[in-house]
Amino acid sequence: MKVRPGPTTRIRIREFSGSTARDRRDDLATEEPLEIRMSAPDGSRRTAAITMRTPGHDFELAAGFLSGEGLAGPGDIAAIAYCTDDDIPPEARYNTVTVHLKGPIPDLPALDRHFLTSSACGVCGSASLESLHDRCRPLPRGELELTAELLYGLPGALRDAQGVFGKTGGLHAAGLFSASGTLVAAREDVGRHNAVDKLVGWAAMSDRLPLSDHVLMVSGRTSYEIMQKALSAGIPAVCAVSAPSSLAVDLAREFGMTLVGFLRGERCNVYAGAERVAA
Amino acid sequence: MKVRPGPTTRIRIREFSGSTARDRRDDLATEEPLEIRMSAPDGSRRTAAITMRTPGHDFELAAGFLSGEGLAGPGDIAAIAYCTDDDIPPEARYNTVTVHLKGPIPDLPALDRHFLTSSACGVCGSASLESLHDRCRPLPRGELELTAELLYGLPGALRDAQGVFGKTGGLHAAGLFSASGTLVAAREDVGRHNAVDKLVGWAAMSDRLPLSDHVLMVSGRTSYEIMQKALSAGIPAVCAVSAPSSLAVDLAREFGMTLVGFLRGERCNVYAGAERVAA
Repeated sequence: MKVRPGPTTRIRIREFSGSTARDRRDDLATEEPLEIRMSAPDGSRRTAAITMRTPGHDFELAAGFLSGEGLAGPGDIAAIAYCTDDDIPPEARYNTVTVHLKGPIPDLPALDRHFLTSSACGVCGSASLESLHDRCRPLPRGELELTAELLYGLPGALRDAQGVFGKTGGLHAAGLFSASGTLVAAREDVGRHNAVDKLVGWAAMSDRLPLSDHVLMVSGRTSYEIMQKALSAGIPAVCAVSAPSSLAVDLAREFGMTLVGFLRGERCNVYAGAERVAA
Repeated sequence: MKVRPGPTTRIRIREFSGSTARDRRDDLATEEPLEIRMSAPDGSRRTAAITMRTPGHDFELAAGFLSGEGLAGPGDIAAIAYCTDDDIPPEARYNTVTVHLKGPIPDLPALDRHFLTSSACGVCGSASLESLHDRCRPLPRGELELTAELLYGLPGALRDAQGVFGKTGGLHAAGLFSASGTLVAAREDVGRHNAVDKLVGWAAMSDRLPLSDHVLMVSGRTSYEIMQKALSAGIPAVCAVSAPSSLAVDLAREFGMTLVGFLRGERCNVYAGAERVAA
């Protein structure tokens, strides 16, 4: 039985600083799916949402989500518990929360209005990765050869491509770079997933998929979803100004991708696929 | 007929710097919903997603989303167009993109697996606000009186409450403060909506809703969804380290909320509800 996931996950990374590299341990924010279920006294039940979250305060997350969506206030809730239904495998028990309602399950809004942001998502991280294999092959090692020096130049190039407003931090940016570090295209959006979707859509519409030998640079963090979108587009290397989640790193390692984080000034951390990066 | 929305929106704000305040104009990233529809040669159609996005490169966003989710690659697409169906009101025409497929509409993954991240969302920003009125009343002016001085202290107090990892930027934080600026509770998560849900859930489970006379402080940006969650919990003031979206400001103004952004050091911008903030 899997240990209950904690809020952080310790892994080995390669840290580049200037022209030197060293391996060390680092802590990442854990990212695991949480399924929020509602159940009624008559035994009926329904999934209200599946969200990628950091484990901890899961009952509060479920109660807050239902309250915020107008589905159930505190007075409607009889109990909240991790799910022990027989259809939940043991390793996913702490990733499913059932909110037992005092009354019937409320109508959810029309289903085709819902966001379809992570269709491949399962009730635990490894199941999410498993289901990705149905439609994505691991990326081959390929011919992409990066240097730390090249990586150090990417954030500035992406920032230069942003509009004045984006530079203030008002918009997420995603940039696609060639293997030589030349910016090929950049897109901005209030939603970081959208910025990546716009880039991939541009590539799809200009018949450039898969984007082998390209590097994706994003202005924020990297999560499971960002990595899933990059993988699906065949992009072997993803760089970010900020931190990756645990599941982003798991995905990168499982699918042969290079994942770089905290790319700022003359330093960065390589969380996966360090064989593509030379000092 | 509404003008096609642009990527930025100009509004009047009140800027506080030290103990002085002045009114000026500012540009915000536009946030409007985009509905992505698929249609087949036999005339059938289906909504694949509704996502809050910044207008611009909408066809790329639609193509990239469908490609990334494994629903339709570039070879499956006959054409992409803004929707002119009779059921789309004119003001929402540039917020609905139809992807005309060469073949039948693919099966979407089981619907109850989808994220329910914005159930109140419509196909244009004003419709989204409209539908919020069904379940949320505008907040009264109330007795909350804030000073710029008090606001300047919130980011540091929230940072102090974060774990070591969160301080590195690996996690989003949300903090709930009393009217006197005392931190009441703080939560962290890889997902910024989850951090707010956890706070609201904590308040719900400890019988503190509605959170009148409280201030919500978030480490990132403010979007429609964050404001919707705060409104639903009755929180009259929301502060953020970074920028709000246009729709976050629209929501705050429509529902009588105070919205503060770029709260860094001894300065901030007040985008809505400035009557609650004294210099």
